[in-house]
Amino acid sequence: MRIVALAGGVGGAKMAHGLAQVLSAEELTILVNVGDDFDHFGLRICPDLDTVCYTLAGLANPATGWGRADESWGALETIGALGGPTWFRLGDRDLGVHLERTRRLASGMPLSQIVSHFCHAWGLFLTVLPISDDNLPTWVYTDEGEMPFQEYFVQRQCRPKVSGFQFRGVEQARPAEGVLQAIDSAEAIVICPSNPWVSIDPILAVPGVKAALSGRPVYAISPIIGGKAIKGPAAKMFTELGIRPTASAVARHYADLLKGFILDCQDRQEEEEIKVTGLRTLVTDTVMNTPLDRQRLAMEVLRFAQQ
Amino acid sequence: MRIVALAGGVGGAKMAHGLAQVLSAEELTILVNVGDDFDHFGLRICPDLDTVCYTLAGLANPATGWGRADESWGALETIGALGGPTWFRLGDRDLGVHLERTRRLASGMPLSQIVSHFCHAWGLFLTVLPISDDNLPTWVYTDEGEMPFQEYFVQRQCRPKVSGFQFRGVEQARPAEGVLQAIDSAEAIVICPSNPWVSIDPILAVPGVKAALSGRPVYAISPIIGGKAIKGPAAKMFTELGIRPTASAVARHYADLLKGFILDCQDRQEEEEIKVTGLRTLVTDTVMNTPLDRQRLAMEVLRFAQQ
Repeated sequence: MRIVALAGGVGGAKMAHGLAQVLSAEELTILVNVGDDFDHFGLRICPDLDTVCYTLAGLANPATGWGRADESWGALETIGALGGPTWFRLGDRDLGVHLERTRRLASGMPLSQIVSHFCHAWGLFLTVLPISDDNLPTWVYTDEGEMPFQEYFVQRQCRPKVSGFQFRGVEQARPAEGVLQAIDSAEAIVICPSNPWVSIDPILAVPGVKAALSGRPVYAISPIIGGKAIKGPAAKMFTELGIRPTASAVARHYADLLKGFILDCQDRQEEEEIKVTGLRTLVTDTVMNTPLDRQRLAMEVLRFAQQ
Repeated sequence: MRIVALAGGVGGAKMAHGLAQVLSAEELTILVNVGDDFDHFGLRICPDLDTVCYTLAGLANPATGWGRADESWGALETIGALGGPTWFRLGDRDLGVHLERTRRLASGMPLSQIVSHFCHAWGLFLTVLPISDDNLPTWVYTDEGEMPFQEYFVQRQCRPKVSGFQFRGVEQARPAEGVLQAIDSAEAIVICPSNPWVSIDPILAVPGVKAALSGRPVYAISPIIGGKAIKGPAAKMFTELGIRPTASAVARHYADLLKGFILDCQDRQEEEEIKVTGLRTLVTDTVMNTPLDRQRLAMEVLRFAQQ
């Protein structure tokens, strides 16, 4: 069974990990958001790619969901002592990844090849692809002005009120090698429970991706449960954009892209509303607290997609 | 008493530390080699400046002479696991310094201001100046071709046979702000027991520096003791360039720049040979094994210079 998953941050990484546990390496391709990538201290930092890869490789910090387990903070402590910016938490092992990625990018290697190399080094043999080797930095329009995503997300801790998003340069971006082929040959495409606005939309905005997904068996899992996001500003963003944060709002967000929608038991009352739009639905427990939860949810989603 | 010291790596740092122990902060200016600075992983690395500052601030690793005490290696281990280059030993705390320096350089701050800021952050109130804010990378000409200094020094561990040196771009380099003023107002200038070829010569090659030193009370301490260097390739370089590595060869190297020369007791038999060239001499124990050795030698050198 060939499956493609679209993933962003922590929720996407958990779902991807669940899928990786129930599928063989050849069956699974994970397409990852690069809109939140940015340069910091001259290093190229790809938070979503790293969160996905760390999670899949068992290197992630289970307490935070981002960054690495067994991390040390010598570099950041030093930067702090020298009066430098410490708002973006760079662990030492995490830094090693950014350094080596930056070195390889400077040598002309495309990001997708670097990710592939890193995955092999970490013993991962499934396919993880950045949606594009090109830059499409997410800018957030807010009541405090427009700002790059990490400034909004980390430095200002999502406090500014959002009015819109832009993925700068996305018109010129091309899907990374293998992206469209993976979608074309997939038996199902799973949109992970990632933030629709800033994790999935940048993926969908890359020219050619939406067209490739059109008419295909695409299934999305709601990142909104009981009106809230498990993690991150998805619910806050819906509200600020004038949309009530509900599972059905997520389904509407993806609109005619979807064949089916997976929502949490807590939102059971929304099932009918979603069904009438022509979508198949699966109501199940979508909260992934443990690795076993991830595996069970992945299994249910795949069974639902196969029906 | 206003003293200027010219310093390169570990020997220079030890001497500078000795001088800092016996002089007040206002009395001492240390001019440091930047010829061995280089870019690695996109970061600006200044090994001599860091060795001097770490040593003065009590942050240096006493076992190695370079790098920091209480260092961790998470980033470098990660880079190694990803197949990246690990020949240059980047500790995590050391990396923090390179990251913050690179960030400040990218923002347009000159290196000398950055060093000044770092020194204050580390509680150092004497003046440490890179000899120049401009780049003058040392290239080493060898029987295996020409190569940047760190490739020769660290990656190839000084194995290639040296035939000459070039400080690329030094003709266009200007002394950092404060360098010429410090020399002009110094009561004595001390050339630390650093490598003459690759630590002191790049300092002297910066246009204006030699002229400023000309006719001034300049004193050099021999880095060659009993035909050997305490650390590093100085003796090997002398030999490969066709010069017997002796204290008097060092004195001749600096030629008419010097008023006096300090050599080790082990080389006492060379004193007369040096004296006949018109130099005053001091024969003493110049090996600095302990912080007390540094202090004693500094005291003796200053007394000698004052005579």
